[in-house]
Amino acid sequence: MCPGSPTRKAAVKMTFEQINSIFEENDCFTILTHKSPDGDTLGCGFALCEFLRNMGKKANVLNSEGFPERYDFIYEGYYEQDFEEQYVIAVDIADTVLLGHNLERYAAEGAIDLCIDHHISNKNYAKTTYVDAKAPAAALILYKIMRESGKPVTKHIAEALYTGIATDTGCFKYENTTPETHRIAAELMENFDINFAVINRKMFDVKSKARMRVEQGVARHMEYYYDDKCSLIILSRETMEESGVDASEFEGLASIPLSVEGVQIGITVKERHENVYKISVRTTEEVDASAFCKNFGGGGHIRAAGCEIHAPLAEVRSMLLMQVDKELNGTKQD
Amino acid sequence: MCPGSPTRKAAVKMTFEQINSIFEENDCFTILTHKSPDGDTLGCGFALCEFLRNMGKKANVLNSEGFPERYDFIYEGYYEQDFEEQYVIAVDIADTVLLGHNLERYAAEGAIDLCIDHHISNKNYAKTTYVDAKAPAAALILYKIMRESGKPVTKHIAEALYTGIATDTGCFKYENTTPETHRIAAELMENFDINFAVINRKMFDVKSKARMRVEQGVARHMEYYYDDKCSLIILSRETMEESGVDASEFEGLASIPLSVEGVQIGITVKERHENVYKISVRTTEEVDASAFCKNFGGGGHIRAAGCEIHAPLAEVRSMLLMQVDKELNGTKQD
Repeated sequence: MCPGSPTRKAAVKMTFEQINSIFEENDCFTILTHKSPDGDTLGCGFALCEFLRNMGKKANVLNSEGFPERYDFIYEGYYEQDFEEQYVIAVDIADTVLLGHNLERYAAEGAIDLCIDHHISNKNYAKTTYVDAKAPAAALILYKIMRESGKPVTKHIAEALYTGIATDTGCFKYENTTPETHRIAAELMENFDINFAVINRKMFDVKSKARMRVEQGVARHMEYYYDDKCSLIILSRETMEESGVDASEFEGLASIPLSVEGVQIGITVKERHENVYKISVRTTEEVDASAFCKNFGGGGHIRAAGCEIHAPLAEVRSMLLMQVDKELNGTKQD
Repeated sequence: MCPGSPTRKAAVKMTFEQINSIFEENDCFTILTHKSPDGDTLGCGFALCEFLRNMGKKANVLNSEGFPERYDFIYEGYYEQDFEEQYVIAVDIADTVLLGHNLERYAAEGAIDLCIDHHISNKNYAKTTYVDAKAPAAALILYKIMRESGKPVTKHIAEALYTGIATDTGCFKYENTTPETHRIAAELMENFDINFAVINRKMFDVKSKARMRVEQGVARHMEYYYDDKCSLIILSRETMEESGVDASEFEGLASIPLSVEGVQIGITVKERHENVYKISVRTTEEVDASAFCKNFGGGGHIRAAGCEIHAPLAEVRSMLLMQVDKELNGTKQD
């Protein structure tokens, strides 16, 4: 569960100009990305890193778990630079708990200078925060910041940002997609000749044979509750280890429970350590995923959210199902 | 296989204005959609039908196989009108063989007045043809025609057209997506408040439990050839009937063979009748699907094409694999 409420500062609405001034005025940047890294946090991280380096700055991208192979085209050519950190930027990180255990040094008040994010649940933990909760991806915000600067955006930067936008919107499929999202996609295609089809194939359409087996297994063992309005997948460490599949291949399974007709809330429970479960929740318009996860100290978006529960599996399942019952059958406590 | 080469007329480039004049000057329209109907042909068919009816015209949409339930939101509220047909328009139909057996009356030379299509392989069978092979969907062309007319486009028309665009581009995923495609999607969202997320969920993300089983079965029985660069799925009528799944649920399976890492040509073979097989081919950039299918009298797009082979299954398989060998191993005849 999440730690006690952080001290909330009044969020100051920054301008893109102010953010670009920050990039100008500092020299050595550390860019933090969130654990279980996805296309948006990595796309932002490496796009910003390249952008800053192209300005003659020094910059590194950090992640507590390393960078999954699946996203290798985003960090191709990246190397770590040696410098004394001067300014710390978090991208696509709503809460410091998402920094992971390796990054505890940044959990302290004031350790992070700037956060660029699109989560409505952002905890406002950084010294300055730019949140646009209507943006479907942090990458979209970052692109607008870069565009405003007038400084060169390279094809590689554009591809990293497109990846963030595409992965967070399910390739323009989900409700969070805005007309502006499409227009910026058009701009990225037109101005930077990005290999969007190759990226999309890699992100959405291609699976290893092993992943295919994983998905088949998952689909076969799906549990259904409450007139099939709720479906649940449980992935134990044992199952995952036995599969012989790279951990990153278990990403994105969260959408499977919701892919069955009639399901309104799809839950994926992944064992991280003994008695530590990572919960991913996906919902249709009937259920607020973010509110659901808040009950367990988590958060996220209205249709896609997550939390972590520390308890034995049987207890985790029953806690979740009780909450599902409240959501679906209108017996909410509040 | 396809019938002998049709008489090819020089394609005349029509303007949108001319097409809108045709809509103005005629009164009773039949709109033809292709067999194994998909989102694009149905989206175009019902969008155009509503557009014409809103102009005070009479119009019906025909399909040789009826309208699959999967697309019910496109033809919701549609009813057949009684009139003497005056003008026949084919939408998204490259070849009269795609009219299906019920529509043989339209196969004769001159029976179809106008064809609006985006297939490079269009056989130019209609009296007048508007083909834009760069358009990812016929629905995109049709939207531009309607926009040009200045006549009202309703939310329902916009949703039907969006469906055509989304389904033919894999929701903006595939290579055929253009910057204009994104800009038109933005326009449809902004101007008509379309329920795009609901449509996309229905088109791309939701499966019946039965469909899930079908996909699992398909994935388990996939055949691999030529160092796994080719994968093949064979769906017999028996398999399909035994599954108890509506025939339309077997649509869209064509993408599964290509979803395995390393596969460059994915082939789905569906038995239609005894010794009649419908072949769907999907390829990565290494192989031209349209050229591949031309060898068997078919056609389509560069990454997605189809043909029909009349032969026993064993022969169909070996014909296809011999051609795959030529494609992958560079022993082409021409």
